[in-house]
Amino acid sequence: MNLKTELLNFKEGITLESGERLDSFDLQIETYGEINKEGSNAILICHAFSGNHHAAGQSNDFGIGWWDQIIGPNKAIDTEKYFVVCCNNLGGCAGSTGPTSINPTTQKVYGKTFPIVSVDDWVNSQKMLMDRLNIDFWHLVAGGSLGGMQALQWSISYPEKVRKAGIFAAAAKSSTQNIAMNEVARESIRKDKNFYGGDYHEHNALPKNGIKTARMLGHITYLSEELMDMRFGRKFQDEASKVDESVNFEVENYLQYKGEKFSEFFDANSYILMTKAMDDYDAGKDKSLEEKLRDIKTEFLIIGFYSDWLYPPERGKEIQIAAMKNNIKSSFVVLDGEHGHDSFLFDSEPYSKLIKNFIES
Amino acid sequence: MNLKTELLNFKEGITLESGERLDSFDLQIETYGEINKEGSNAILICHAFSGNHHAAGQSNDFGIGWWDQIIGPNKAIDTEKYFVVCCNNLGGCAGSTGPTSINPTTQKVYGKTFPIVSVDDWVNSQKMLMDRLNIDFWHLVAGGSLGGMQALQWSISYPEKVRKAGIFAAAAKSSTQNIAMNEVARESIRKDKNFYGGDYHEHNALPKNGIKTARMLGHITYLSEELMDMRFGRKFQDEASKVDESVNFEVENYLQYKGEKFSEFFDANSYILMTKAMDDYDAGKDKSLEEKLRDIKTEFLIIGFYSDWLYPPERGKEIQIAAMKNNIKSSFVVLDGEHGHDSFLFDSEPYSKLIKNFIES
Repeated sequence: MNLKTELLNFKEGITLESGERLDSFDLQIETYGEINKEGSNAILICHAFSGNHHAAGQSNDFGIGWWDQIIGPNKAIDTEKYFVVCCNNLGGCAGSTGPTSINPTTQKVYGKTFPIVSVDDWVNSQKMLMDRLNIDFWHLVAGGSLGGMQALQWSISYPEKVRKAGIFAAAAKSSTQNIAMNEVARESIRKDKNFYGGDYHEHNALPKNGIKTARMLGHITYLSEELMDMRFGRKFQDEASKVDESVNFEVENYLQYKGEKFSEFFDANSYILMTKAMDDYDAGKDKSLEEKLRDIKTEFLIIGFYSDWLYPPERGKEIQIAAMKNNIKSSFVVLDGEHGHDSFLFDSEPYSKLIKNFIES
Repeated sequence: MNLKTELLNFKEGITLESGERLDSFDLQIETYGEINKEGSNAILICHAFSGNHHAAGQSNDFGIGWWDQIIGPNKAIDTEKYFVVCCNNLGGCAGSTGPTSINPTTQKVYGKTFPIVSVDDWVNSQKMLMDRLNIDFWHLVAGGSLGGMQALQWSISYPEKVRKAGIFAAAAKSSTQNIAMNEVARESIRKDKNFYGGDYHEHNALPKNGIKTARMLGHITYLSEELMDMRFGRKFQDEASKVDESVNFEVENYLQYKGEKFSEFFDANSYILMTKAMDDYDAGKDKSLEEKLRDIKTEFLIIGFYSDWLYPPERGKEIQIAAMKNNIKSSFVVLDGEHGHDSFLFDSEPYSKLIKNFIES
C-alpha cells in the first residue's frame, strides 16, 4: 500500500493559540497509497491522545499501525483508492516536535518549557502539512476520540478544505468527569519523584511510575463497567502470571501490565500536554456549537458506541443536533461496540460498511 | 444525647479470616443514648471505608460526626429512643488497632505487617464488642457503602442477633470496576517515594502525595458524571482561589483541595487495607447470595440512589432479589439522591422517613 514515513521540517514556524511561537518545527508523517491526478482522493487521519503517525501497516518502531483494521488495501479506508496521510501531532513523543525535542534556541530538551498546544493548533499545523503536500482539499478527515475532535475542528477552521468529516467516539468538548479523570492522571505524574517539575531530562530520570498509574486509570475509562465485568469479573489472577505480588484479581493484573508497558515509551510532559489539550477543547467556545457550525460545508458521519463510557453516544448526538440545525448533511449512528471507548479502533462489519459508504457516497 | 467515647481492649485477641491472629486489640467506640431495661433498643452503625467511630454530635478531634444528619435526638435514628453504638473498624486509623498501632510483640508500629482484615473480621470483632457491652441483639445494624456491606454480613454471620439491617448505597460484592479504581488508588500510594513499601513510619516519612491522588480519584466516584457536570461544568477556577498553579478548571481545584485535606490525616496502609477488604468482599462467596441468605431472620431495608455511580441501585436490587427468593421481609427503595454515592450521608425527607419507619415498624 506504498507506506512512506517522512520527517518534514517547517522552518517558517507556527504561532500557537496561546500566542507563543515555535520558530521551527518538525512533523513526523506517514502516508499510504497515492494521490490521483485530480488531487481529489486525499484523506487525513488524526490520532487520539496517545497515538502517533503510524496508523496502518507494519513498522519496525511501532509494530502494527493503530488503525490497521480500518486502513489498508480494500479496507474501510481503502489505500488502493485513496491517499491517506497521518502525522504525529505537535507536542507528541513519536517524532514530531514536542517536549522531548531539542529547543533550537537553547539547544536543550524542551521538557516542561514546551508551549501549551491545542486542538486548533494541531489543525493549523496539519493545514501547513496539507499545503506542503500540495493537497487542495481533504476528501475526508477522520479520527476517533481526540482524533474525532480534530476532524470536527477541521470543518470549523477550514470549511472549504474538508469534504467529509468522520467523527468517531468523540465529543465537541470534554465533560467535567473527563477533566477530573485527566487531572488525577496528571497529578500522579507530577508527584512522581522522578518528575522534577517536568525537568526529568536534566536529571536523567523518567517518571515511569506516574505515567503507569495515569495509564491504569486511562484503561478503566477505555473499557465500560459492563465490559470489564464480562472480561474479568471477580476472577483471581493465577500466581504464575502475576506481574506484581500485590495483585489479587485479574483486572488488577491487566491494569498493572498495560500501565507498565505504556510507561516504557510515553513521555510524561507529552501526557500532561495532550490531556490538557483534550480538556481545553470546546468546539463551541465563545459562541455555541450551533453557531460555530454555521458556515461549514463538510458532510458529517458521527459514530458513537453504546459501550463507550468516556465519550458516550450522547456526546456525538450533541454534534448531530447542532449540525441538523444548520442543515448540514450528517448521519449519526450508534453501534454496539465490543471494546468500550476503544471500539473506534476495531473493525466490525457495520462500522467498516458505514465508513466505506460514507467515503464513497 | 449522652455521647460517650471509649477505648476498649480485647485481650483475648481475634483470629482473622486469613488465619492470622491479633493476640490483643483495641476498639475505639462511641455511643449515643442509653440502653433500655429490656436491652431491646441497641443499634449498631457501621462506617464506610474512610469513616470512624465518631458518627454523631461534635468532638474535638473529629468535628461533626459523619452521620450526624441521620443520628441524634429526634432524627431518623433517634438517640432519645435508641442506644446507638459505632466503632472504628480494625485496621482503621482513628483509634482502633490498625497499621499505625504498636505491635505488642515487637514494640514497633505494625505498618505494613498489619494483617489483612475482611468484612467478616469486622463483623466478628463487632460481635465481641456486642458481648462486651452485654447487648443480646441489635434492633438494627445499619450503614452506607462499605458500612452497608457489614450490615448485610451481620445478617449472614449472626442471623439470631440482628432484627433489622439497613443497607444503603451498598452491594453484596464489589464490581470489577470498583476493584480497578481501588487498584489505581493503591498503585498511587505504593509508588509514592515516601511509602517505602509500607515502612514509612521507620523512615519518619508520610506518603501524602499518593494518598492525595488516591482520594482525588475516590471523589470522582463519589459524585456522578451528571452531578459533577451540574456542580462544576467547565467553569474555570478564579486565580485567587487556586490551590495549585497547575489548575485550570473548578473541578480540578475541588479534587486538589479534597485530596490534600484527606492526605493530612489518613494512613496509607489503612487505605490499602480498607480498599482490599472492600474489593475482597463477596457476600455470596463459595455459594450464591441466595443460598447465603437461606437462614437469615433479619428484615432488610435496602436503599439505592439513582445518582450513585459507585454502587448503583442495581447492586441493591441484587440483594433484594436474593432476599425475596428466601421470603425475607425486605424493602428496596431507590431515591434520587443529590450527592451521588455520598447521598447516603445526607438527610432528606424521604430518606429519613424510610429509615424511621423501618426502625419503628
